[in-house]
Amino acid sequence: MRIYDIIAKKRDGGELTREELEFFVSGSLGTIPDYQLSALLMAICIRGMTERETSDLTLLMANSGDVMDLSKIEGTTIDKHSTGGVGDKTTLIAGPIAAACGVKVAKMSGRALGHTGGTIDKLESIPGFRTSLSNKEFFDIVNRVGICVVGQTANLAPADKKLYALRDVTATVESIPLIASSVMSKKLAAGSDGILLDVKVGKGAFMKTRESAIALAEQMVAIGKRAGRHTAALITNMDVPLGRAIGNSLEVTEAVETLSCKGPADITDLCLELAANMLYLSKKGGTLTECRRLASEALKSGAALKKLEEMVEAQGGDIAYLRDTELFPTTPESGEYTAEKDGYITSIDAEGCGITASLLGAGREAAGDPIDPAAGIILLKKPGEYVRRGEPLAILYASSQIKLVQGLARIARCYNISNINPPIPELIIASV
Amino acid sequence: MRIYDIIAKKRDGGELTREELEFFVSGSLGTIPDYQLSALLMAICIRGMTERETSDLTLLMANSGDVMDLSKIEGTTIDKHSTGGVGDKTTLIAGPIAAACGVKVAKMSGRALGHTGGTIDKLESIPGFRTSLSNKEFFDIVNRVGICVVGQTANLAPADKKLYALRDVTATVESIPLIASSVMSKKLAAGSDGILLDVKVGKGAFMKTRESAIALAEQMVAIGKRAGRHTAALITNMDVPLGRAIGNSLEVTEAVETLSCKGPADITDLCLELAANMLYLSKKGGTLTECRRLASEALKSGAALKKLEEMVEAQGGDIAYLRDTELFPTTPESGEYTAEKDGYITSIDAEGCGITASLLGAGREAAGDPIDPAAGIILLKKPGEYVRRGEPLAILYASSQIKLVQGLARIARCYNISNINPPIPELIIASV
Repeated sequence: MRIYDIIAKKRDGGELTREELEFFVSGSLGTIPDYQLSALLMAICIRGMTERETSDLTLLMANSGDVMDLSKIEGTTIDKHSTGGVGDKTTLIAGPIAAACGVKVAKMSGRALGHTGGTIDKLESIPGFRTSLSNKEFFDIVNRVGICVVGQTANLAPADKKLYALRDVTATVESIPLIASSVMSKKLAAGSDGILLDVKVGKGAFMKTRESAIALAEQMVAIGKRAGRHTAALITNMDVPLGRAIGNSLEVTEAVETLSCKGPADITDLCLELAANMLYLSKKGGTLTECRRLASEALKSGAALKKLEEMVEAQGGDIAYLRDTELFPTTPESGEYTAEKDGYITSIDAEGCGITASLLGAGREAAGDPIDPAAGIILLKKPGEYVRRGEPLAILYASSQIKLVQGLARIARCYNISNINPPIPELIIASV
Repeated sequence: MRIYDIIAKKRDGGELTREELEFFVSGSLGTIPDYQLSALLMAICIRGMTERETSDLTLLMANSGDVMDLSKIEGTTIDKHSTGGVGDKTTLIAGPIAAACGVKVAKMSGRALGHTGGTIDKLESIPGFRTSLSNKEFFDIVNRVGICVVGQTANLAPADKKLYALRDVTATVESIPLIASSVMSKKLAAGSDGILLDVKVGKGAFMKTRESAIALAEQMVAIGKRAGRHTAALITNMDVPLGRAIGNSLEVTEAVETLSCKGPADITDLCLELAANMLYLSKKGGTLTECRRLASEALKSGAALKKLEEMVEAQGGDIAYLRDTELFPTTPESGEYTAEKDGYITSIDAEGCGITASLLGAGREAAGDPIDPAAGIILLKKPGEYVRRGEPLAILYASSQIKLVQGLARIARCYNISNINPPIPELIIASV
C-alpha cells in the first residue's frame, strides 16, 4: 500500500477502505511526511467522507494511544462535551447535577487556548485543586462522590493531536467529518459508556448555521452509536457568551451561584437540560420528562451544590472558596466598559469577548503560557436589555494596566446597540 | 498576507489574485513549509484555476530563477517542447530541419527520468559531445549554425522545480492548469521568441484522451500568447513508441537515418510537421503549406542532415559516428523477443517499452543514476503488421545478462496480438 495512491483516490472522490485509513492513521505518527498528510487532509476536506469512513477514522484515531478502561467504576459513566463556547462553565454545573442524580461522571477536560476557556484552568483557580490524579484516585473519587474532573492524559488519541495540529495550519479544520472524528476520537478513548454532545451554533461558535450544527451533531451521534456508546446531542445557541462571567475564578463563582439557584437564567436552563439528557442517556432516570424533574430537584434541594463541594474536597481543593466566593483573589486592575449611546443591546460578540478575556490575562495564545486565574469579564448587560449612554455594560479584570487598556479597546467592538429590540434566539435549538 | 487565508480561499473555490500567487510562489522557495504548499496544491488540483490565475502562476514561476536573454541571437528563435513520449527523438530531426530553413533553435533539454528518455542523454551518446556550454558559446553556435542543444541550467524556474517535486509525491500532478504552468514556466524562462508544443495523447502519454490533450494545449497556448510569445501546439498520438528505436545511441542512429530519408514513416511525417510549424511560427516561411514544402525540401536535399552534423561538430561531437552509425558501441548482451502466437499486432504499450528500455540500462530511476548509452530496444514490428509465432518482434540491448532477462520479461507485457487488424490511429490528431 502506498500513501500516494490513497491520496489520489480521495482526490478523485473515492471512498477509502478501513485498511487505507489504518495505513494513513498509523503512518501519521511515523513514516508519512507532513506534506503527504496535509495533501490528503485537503482532499478529505473538499471531497468529504462517508459515514463509514468517518467512523473508521474515528476509531483508528481513538485507538492510536491510551484508551481509558472505566470498568472499575460502578454504574453508568456519562461524558459531556461542548464544541467550544465562551463563558461555558456547564461542566461545573451540569456535571454535579447529573452526579447528584446518580450518573457517574468520569471526565477528562482541556485547558484554555485561543479565545476559548478550559475547565481544567477554571477548577485550578480553586486553591489546592489537583487535576492530575492517578487512575486509581480518579476511579475511587468517581465511585465515592459520583464525579471527578481531571486533565487529559498526554497520550490520548495522539494521531488526532498530530492531524489536528496540521489541519490548524493548512485550512483543513472546516470539514464536518474531520471535526466529528476529531471530537469523537477523544471521547471514545476517554472510555465513558455514554456521551452527551453540546454542539454550539452561532456567531461565537465554529458552526455558524443551524444546518451545519445539526449535520455535525448527526455525524458525531452516528459515530458514537456505531462504537456502541449511548450518544446524543443538543444544538445550543452561542451567539452571545453563556451567563455573565468569563474568566476562571469568575466562572467558578458563577457556577456556585447557579448551583445555589441564583445564577443567570440562560446558564441555569442549559445546565438543567444537559444534566437531564445525561441522566436520560444513563437510562437510570426514566423518561426525559422525569429526568428533567429529577435534575431540577437536585438543583433546588442543594444536592448538586453539595456534589460540587464533595468533588472539590476530594480533589484537594479548599471548599471555603465555594462557600464564600469573595475569598477568591481579584486582579490588580479593573475597569468599566460603558455604553456609547442609548438603546437596546442587540448582540454581544462571543468570540470577541473570549479574545478580550484572553487579552486581560484569562487565556493563552500558546499552550503552556501562564494565566491569571482572577482575570476576566463580568457582563452587566446582555442582549434585550435597554441601556443609557454612559451606563456600565461590563467590568473588566486585568492582571496589568496595559492589559486592561487592550481589553477595553477590544470589548468596544463586541457590543451592538440599536433602537430596535430584536427577539432573543432560543438557547436550546434542537436535539439529535 | 497569510498563506492560511490563501489556502482557505482556494479550498472554497475562490480565484487567487496575482499578489496571492506571488506570495505563494516566492514563499515556496523559502518561508512556507511543505505541508502548507501541498495543501494548496491539492486545493488547486481539485478546484482548478482560471486562465488568468494559470498565466500569473506561470510567469511568477518563470521569473523565480534565471531568465535567458536570447537577444544576442540574430533572427527568430523557436523552441519546441514535447510533453513526454517514448522513442521521441524529434528534437534531433525537426530541430535540424527547421534550422536548415532559417529558424534559430536555441534549445535547453532535459535528461532521461522514469520511463521517458532525454535529448541530452541521447546527444551525449555521441563521443565528445558537450551539453554544458557558456552562454557565449551557446549564442555563437546558434548564430553560426542555426541550432544548439544544451542542458538546462540549474536555476531555471526553481519554484516550478520545488513545486513539481512536491506534486510528484502528493498526487497533485494530474491537474491541467498545474501541468500547463509547469511546462510553460520553463519554456518562458528559456527565452525563445516562439514555442511549438507537441502534446502527446494516448496510452503512453500523460494525457489519455483527445479532450484532455486539447484542453492542456489550449491552456499552454493561451499562457504563451499572454506572455507575448508566438505559441502553437500539435496534438499527436502516443499509443505506441515513435519510430522503431528506444535508447540513446539507437535513437541517434534512427535520427540520422530519418534525416537521410530512410527513417520510419511515423517519425518522418511528425518531424516534417513539427519543423513546418516551427518555421510557420517564426513567420519566415510564408503560409503553413509553403512551410511544409520548405521543410520537405530541407530534408530531401540533405540540408537538414548537414545541420545536425554542423551542430554536433560545433558542440565537440565526433561526426564520424553520424556518417557511420555502426561505430557506436553495442551492449555486451542482446536478445530477441519473439511472437507468442500468429496474428496482427494491435498495440505496443509505449510506457511499458519505456520502462523496459530503462530496465535494460537506457534510463534512470533517480536523477544522477548512470546510464548505458548503447542499451535499448529496436522494435522490428509495429501495429498493423502480421506476425507468425516465433517471429522476432524486438531486439533488446542490455548492459548485463540480468538486465536482459528483466527486459525480456517486461516487454512481454507490451505487445497485443489479435486475429483482427484494427485501424491505426492518425499520428497528428489536431492543432491549436
